Amino acid sequence: MVYLTRVEHFNAAHKLYNPNWSKEKNEEVFEGCANENWHGHNFDLYVTVKGEIDPETGFVMNLKDLSKLVKQHVLTKVDHKNLNLDVDFMQGKMASAEVLISEIWKLIIPHLPVGVQLHSLKLYETHKSFVEYFG
Amino acid sequence: MVYLTRVEHFNAAHKLYNPNWSKEKNEEVFEGCANENWHGHNFDLYVTVKGEIDPETGFVMNLKDLSKLVKQHVLTKVDHKNLNLDVDFMQGKMASAEVLISEIWKLIIPHLPVGVQLHSLKLYETHKSFVEYFG
Amino acid sequence: MVYLTRVEHFNAAHKLYNPNWSKEKNEEVFEGCANENWHGHNFDLYVTVKGEIDPETGFVMNLKDLSKLVKQHVLTKVDHKNLNLDVDFMQGKMASAEVLISEIWKLIIPHLPVGVQLHSLKLYETHKSFVEYFG
Amino acid sequence: MVYLTRVEHFNAAHKLYNPNWSKEKNEEVFEGCANENWHGHNFDLYVTVKGEIDPETGFVMNLKDLSKLVKQHVLTKVDHKNLNLDVDFMQGKMASAEVLISEIWKLIIPHLPVGVQLHSLKLYETHKSFVEYFG
Amino acid sequence: MVYLTRVEHFNAAHKLYNPNWSKEKNEEVFEGCANENWHGHNFDLYVTVKGEIDPETGFVMNLKDLSKLVKQHVLTKVDHKNLNLDVDFMQGKMASAEVLISEIWKLIIPHLPVGVQLHSLKLYETHKSFVEYFG
Amino acid sequence: MVYLTRVEHFNAAHKLYNPNWSKEKNEEVFEGCANENWHGHNFDLYVTVKGEIDPETGFVMNLKDLSKLVKQHVLTKVDHKNLNLDVDFMQGKMASAEVLISEIWKLIIPHLPVGVQLHSLKLYETHKSFVEYFG
Repeated sequence: MVYLTRVEHFNAAHKLYNPNWSKEKNEEVFEGCANENWHGHNFDLYVTVKGEIDPETGFVMNLKDLSKLVKQHVLTKVDHKNLNLDVDFMQGKMASAEVLISEIWKLIIPHLPVGVQLHSLKLYETHKSFVEYFG
Repeated sequence: MVYLTRVEHFNAAHKLYNPNWSKEKNEEVFEGCANENWHGHNFDLYVTVKGEIDPETGFVMNLKDLSKLVKQHVLTKVDHKNLNLDVDFMQGKMASAEVLISEIWKLIIPHLPVGVQLHSLKLYETHKSFVEYFG
Repeated sequence: MVYLTRVEHFNAAHKLYNPNWSKEKNEEVFEGCANENWHGHNFDLYVTVKGEIDPETGFVMNLKDLSKLVKQHVLTKVDHKNLNLDVDFMQGKMASAEVLISEIWKLIIPHLPVGVQLHSLKLYETHKSFVEYFG
Repeated sequence: MVYLTRVEHFNAAHKLYNPNWSKEKNEEVFEGCANENWHGHNFDLYVTVKGEIDPETGFVMNLKDLSKLVKQHVLTKVDHKNLNLDVDFMQGKMASAEVLISEIWKLIIPHLPVGVQLHSLKLYETHKSFVEYFG
Repeated sequence: MVYLTRVEHFNAAHKLYNPNWSKEKNEEVFEGCANENWHGHNFDLYVTVKGEIDPETGFVMNLKDLSKLVKQHVLTKVDHKNLNLDVDFMQGKMASAEVLISEIWKLIIPHLPVGVQLHSLKLYETHKSFVEYFG
Repeated sequence: MVYLTRVEHFNAAHKLYNPNWSKEKNEEVFEGCANENWHGHNFDLYVTVKGEIDPETGFVMNLKDLSKLVKQHVLTKVDHKNLNLDVDFMQGKMASAEVLISEIWKLIIPHLPVGVQLHSLKLYETHKSFVEYFG
């Protein structure tokens, strides 16, 4: 079994804000991330699939297909968007990297070819912080 | 003469939108960057100063002072902000990297110690694009 | 369960030297790393914790708290220090990346919030070498 | 148990081409990678071993020995080579990153010191794609 | 005047081989780079243009146009190609990074919009080496 | 004229300490960098030369020769060394990046081939700071 990773990038705006809390509590917990006028990030998304090598291609799966799949089912929904306002699958949820990565998992899973499993996602939010999810 | 560079990071939301144009023309020219609900970036700012080496310190200028200066006069104004809505010096201007870097230049110039010149700024907006300004 | 990683940096001097060995044997095994006058590195420390997402914050844990914790309990002890001479928890031990990472583990474990586990540490010593530890 | 990783680099030419298929099918599946006159990459190889810390050295294994081993048994065979034409262990196989990493595994395994296990290999083919193998 | 840089990537095979020299001299001068069966690289190309900021867009030039221009006039000719065999503008020339960058300059110059100048190109051949050209 | 850059790495210990000052003043100015027991860095050195392309090789100069030159005349003197104690050309000088880069310049200049000029040096001390020197 070999693990294959594709890295894609997207840019988005968001804020961290719990509507059940006061503005003061939001600012205490989330500091600058609670700015009501939003801030944003360049997100780097690592999508890792695993499977046996197909002897005819030498591939676990065609990397171009993996890239297209991620662009079609994830990037069109989040790139140059506001995670809180524009993204259907984030409605009513906290727009944190942790929630985002667990939702992106659900977007990719149905589209993988037979015999290929989604192993993990990694999402960089800044140079100094990232989250990982294994389902 | 030696050139000394400090790299600082900030995250911000923005959109590229010319209010004198129709929504259609904005979307034609700026594509996803015109999204009315904003998007955002991790910006990397390189601040390069130049000067003679002070024989007592071995420094062009103290790097910690350069970092503090950039944090105090630039990052407090743009980090975790909306460049269009929250930033006084960007009011009425296009929120492009080109305009931003030329405005940041003006924020830093007055605060450098005697004998030290601002040589250049470099601002990464994504992994694949950056602007530079020499005054 | 989601994994959250914070990256922190520190600079330190060290040497690799076994006091039970001759100078010749130390130089044969450790080559330049045995230089009696020390050498040093920029160390990059990746701290990965895991836990369930808190529905109120969207966080496994607050990244700012994780950063503070690492700065307070690790960086204050090793940053701009000599790992052999200045660092209490390295006394009498070889100042290798392997030993250092296993000791840093013990410094972080007691300070994590309830429900959050330390999953792994990664420590880059150079661009081309790093160690990882899972407890 | 601590995990130790050494990163090495090599440059090579290759093409992805299944001789049992028509030229058209090869170009449909592999696109530019099927170019009959080859293309090439800078490959980054991460070799991760694991073991207990030797109390006399503080090492899982001597990093310089790991580097020499990889250079001697892997890099001399693939660096500045054509993976399809020049590399004995790739003859009759698809020259994909997946096949290459699983073959490199076999080259390293016999040469590790007693008590040290090969844990994983990671092979970057471009900035945006890599494979991993765990045996 | 502001400087704007776009980074693009391509993969190619090449060899360094002077047909007026013996095989022995080629191997002495170019070492592994003279391998008759080719080797290859991931090339990173930095294209820097300069100009005044257009007040209507905030741009020196539209980054998407710059990217398209480089893809159309450069990448289609070199990406997944053999620099010695497949690339018309390299025929009869040494396939070095120095020659390549000076030829790429000529490909870009005619296609820049009025008021925008090509300032420099930078071409990374490996992690540890690159060339720059200013016309 | 083409500019050619080679990147080399070295690790060293140093401290910033002016012997004409009190310990208190040293700590006030240099903070942790004044630690009497040293600290250290991974230094990345970029050496840029310029010249005309030699039509026989396609090179400004042979990159392998440039690398050997820097290793022989610079790295053997500073790699795995203490910049204050072990390095002859730094004796009696402040061990800052600014002073170091201006001294490294003198070490390289005499060894370049005819027709090749040293254009610049860049020295990274941390991820966030570097110095440049043009002679």
